[in-house]
Amino acid sequence: MSSLNASAPVWTIFAPDRSSEDSLQDQVYAFFRDAIAEGRLRPGQRLPSTRGLARENRLGRGTIAIAFDRLLAEGYIETRPGVGTLVAEDLADLPMVMPPSPGVEPESKFVAEAALPEASGRARSVGALPLHDPAPGPLFLNPGYPAVDAFPFKTWARLASQFWRSEPAQLLGYQDPQGYLPLRIAISEYLRTARGIAATPDRILVTSGSQQAVDLVTRALLEPGDKVCIEDPGYIGLKGAITASGAVLAPAPVDEQGLIVAEARRKGAGTRLAIVTPTHQFPTGAMLSLARRLELLRWAADEDVWLLEDDYDSEFRYEGRPLSALHSLDPDGRVIYAGTFSKVLAPAIRLGYLVAPSRLMPVLRRLRAHVDRHPPIDSQAVLARFIDEGHFGVHVRRMRLLYRERRDALVAALHGEFGPRASPEPPTSGMHLTLALPAGISDVEVSARALAVGVKCPPLSAYCQTATSRSGLLLGFANLDPALAPQVATRLGAVIAGMQTGMADPVSTPQSNTVSI
Amino acid sequence: MSSLNASAPVWTIFAPDRSSEDSLQDQVYAFFRDAIAEGRLRPGQRLPSTRGLARENRLGRGTIAIAFDRLLAEGYIETRPGVGTLVAEDLADLPMVMPPSPGVEPESKFVAEAALPEASGRARSVGALPLHDPAPGPLFLNPGYPAVDAFPFKTWARLASQFWRSEPAQLLGYQDPQGYLPLRIAISEYLRTARGIAATPDRILVTSGSQQAVDLVTRALLEPGDKVCIEDPGYIGLKGAITASGAVLAPAPVDEQGLIVAEARRKGAGTRLAIVTPTHQFPTGAMLSLARRLELLRWAADEDVWLLEDDYDSEFRYEGRPLSALHSLDPDGRVIYAGTFSKVLAPAIRLGYLVAPSRLMPVLRRLRAHVDRHPPIDSQAVLARFIDEGHFGVHVRRMRLLYRERRDALVAALHGEFGPRASPEPPTSGMHLTLALPAGISDVEVSARALAVGVKCPPLSAYCQTATSRSGLLLGFANLDPALAPQVATRLGAVIAGMQTGMADPVSTPQSNTVSI
Repeated sequence: MSSLNASAPVWTIFAPDRSSEDSLQDQVYAFFRDAIAEGRLRPGQRLPSTRGLARENRLGRGTIAIAFDRLLAEGYIETRPGVGTLVAEDLADLPMVMPPSPGVEPESKFVAEAALPEASGRARSVGALPLHDPAPGPLFLNPGYPAVDAFPFKTWARLASQFWRSEPAQLLGYQDPQGYLPLRIAISEYLRTARGIAATPDRILVTSGSQQAVDLVTRALLEPGDKVCIEDPGYIGLKGAITASGAVLAPAPVDEQGLIVAEARRKGAGTRLAIVTPTHQFPTGAMLSLARRLELLRWAADEDVWLLEDDYDSEFRYEGRPLSALHSLDPDGRVIYAGTFSKVLAPAIRLGYLVAPSRLMPVLRRLRAHVDRHPPIDSQAVLARFIDEGHFGVHVRRMRLLYRERRDALVAALHGEFGPRASPEPPTSGMHLTLALPAGISDVEVSARALAVGVKCPPLSAYCQTATSRSGLLLGFANLDPALAPQVATRLGAVIAGMQTGMADPVSTPQSNTVSI
Repeated sequence: MSSLNASAPVWTIFAPDRSSEDSLQDQVYAFFRDAIAEGRLRPGQRLPSTRGLARENRLGRGTIAIAFDRLLAEGYIETRPGVGTLVAEDLADLPMVMPPSPGVEPESKFVAEAALPEASGRARSVGALPLHDPAPGPLFLNPGYPAVDAFPFKTWARLASQFWRSEPAQLLGYQDPQGYLPLRIAISEYLRTARGIAATPDRILVTSGSQQAVDLVTRALLEPGDKVCIEDPGYIGLKGAITASGAVLAPAPVDEQGLIVAEARRKGAGTRLAIVTPTHQFPTGAMLSLARRLELLRWAADEDVWLLEDDYDSEFRYEGRPLSALHSLDPDGRVIYAGTFSKVLAPAIRLGYLVAPSRLMPVLRRLRAHVDRHPPIDSQAVLARFIDEGHFGVHVRRMRLLYRERRDALVAALHGEFGPRASPEPPTSGMHLTLALPAGISDVEVSARALAVGVKCPPLSAYCQTATSRSGLLLGFANLDPALAPQVATRLGAVIAGMQTGMADPVSTPQSNTVSI
């Protein structure tokens, strides 16, 4: 490096670094750009000749020339006939240095959300909510988590490869925001045969999963400040999607018949939307009774409430027949039906669907186009083919058997650990059961202690919106290797025994998917 | 069918249809459910025995029993010891028939948006905007539409197949809402080497394309009613994403140096976000000058304006070097940089990215999780591998050569058609050029007439937010087979000649990507 002399021009401190990953011309460019931007070279100041600069730094003249051309093109420098190359004059009145944001390093790690008061109110409200754990361990019992190891990898690989090898150029532009028509046809057929739902493809919109379904519906139908009735306890992820739309939560309690509609009606005057899980209430497992269904539809008609029926896991019924969807009682009225492939196939493929009243579809379709256009075409085409070729039906039946086996293994292990106090009734549907806890024991604390010994299972109280006496552990069995079920039971037994001081009564009223101990 | 007798019980009109696709038990179930729901069977009314009903209809008794079990489970009927099976009593106070929505048929086609006054204000504002055309023909010249026939199908098929055959179970649960880390690392490396942008993977968020980038940024940063500065003319799709977030458009004019920042500043008091295309203004092709860039950053710092730099097609520069991104002048301040793979690969894969100041990332990440969680894992993993193995760099270079060839073919054809009046300067970057029209000729009318002869090219005025003298045709050349370029020119020539009555002067001031005729 040249020695630094106060009267020497600033470029004498430039020294090319031949070991750098940046090219020499990039180094020349960056040096002069920064010197100009930081005011060390002034507007109108003459620059050295490319020849002189090249010689001084033992660089090719072409290297300097390329860097200078770029500075010229970007407006940092200009050439004047008979004078030479100068720092551009029209920067004179402009600030040359942008002050760095206070306290923020360019490469800094995430800072706490509190550090961003500029975020919108809705973004801040979302920021406080929990996120899904992306890295489950072997004893990961989050409810609603399917058997990812049982995914039909080989078939999917074959169909994906077939899709791309067919060179589907005509499908690679912007596609229908309502979803790929062959997939909508396949879903329509599936709904008709498996769920008894009459939904023509023009009433189906393919979503990127249930979370987006809630996002689209709330944004399409609600003004900021509108109320949304949700079940309490209920699915936590709803809160984020609802508050992100600017709407307000109006939780209503659930009993063994599902949502207590009279409570919802009483608490939620001015409600514009109610989100319900009639087939299999999440997380209590209650089935919404017919009387309640009709009461709900009556409320919807009386007070212009939209109903979003979240039918997230109706595929997994182990005994008896699935009930008719709420949607079937009101197919083109105020019920919007949401299904997902996250539970039946896998969350990471990000596909689901809405069945909406026909008058609502143009609004949803256009909103979706402007939100993110459509799901990737390959995912949609592969799934359509997967359903059409019959693999989907086979997979659902396989998973139903697998989950029943896993349910039985977990129930047996819990009975083995907790003895005759444990209720003999395993859940007849779904992907999790609720373990009731002895009175006086905090489910939050049990959950935390269980995590410390490697068992991940959330407390029921975490799904409650309001103060409640509900307590328990949610144990998802769909992704649990049956061989590991005894370990789960033993570890939970040890945790609970360590907290117990003679208490024995279960704390909750029995629910349809609850194992009491 | 049994003959209908006023005093006969309602079930005597039931007749199984053995040619139906519905099972016999489903037919029994549906008949009784409907009869109860419609009030033809009253609460407490006794039902026939399964034996009698089976005999009468020549059905198996098991068929009837299954149907009745379902009705029982759903609460339509109940059994009473010593009495038999009755229509359920607790439906007495409930309405049994839901009135159909007035004027809506269950299978009806889309109705006009005006028919849904219940839609939210933001959804209605979005509804008025144009959608992309999902079905282009051969002479489809929409700007920004890449060469979908040149997609790297074989490589993509191989990588997709490899991904699924590796049985990546651990990647099939809910994944990082910020995006798959290997993809973020690949994007980071690409930005560093190709664009000179220093962005560590923790400052990159993978989006489902630019449309979602705008949606996330507006929702994360804006309150309803906040102003967003957009370029005029500019990309139409912004309007929908912005209004869907409840924000208000504040268009500011563009000249040959790009956005006139002083106008934006003057018009947009109270602006919280400005969305700009500094590298290559869409659709005029202007490059934002350095003076304007610094002015823009000064404005952002002075008045707390966020800047969203949409760098949608910087890969396609045919002469000279690409300019530094605006982001590079303010890497962790108020500039959010958005890139997309829609132009370089294909729109239908739905992948893009944001580079955001580190303090903003936690907010964007959490909002994204609650909006739609993350893009499908397979798309992300395949693209990451595609970049890592060097295919992406090769593809970009191939497309750059291909698009230059297509540009040259279109320019030559236009010169051939319109003669020496056509400007000799083809655009030095991007995927479209603007054909200026003789004074007094409506570009909307030319576009409509061109469409009638099979040439799809939008009018420039359609991209204008405010009344303006700008007029012209946008001709995207990236997806145009060079052999068809003469046809495009000939047909446009005929259309324009048919409208011309002696007018010859070009109407617009020349723009960097304009061909005057």
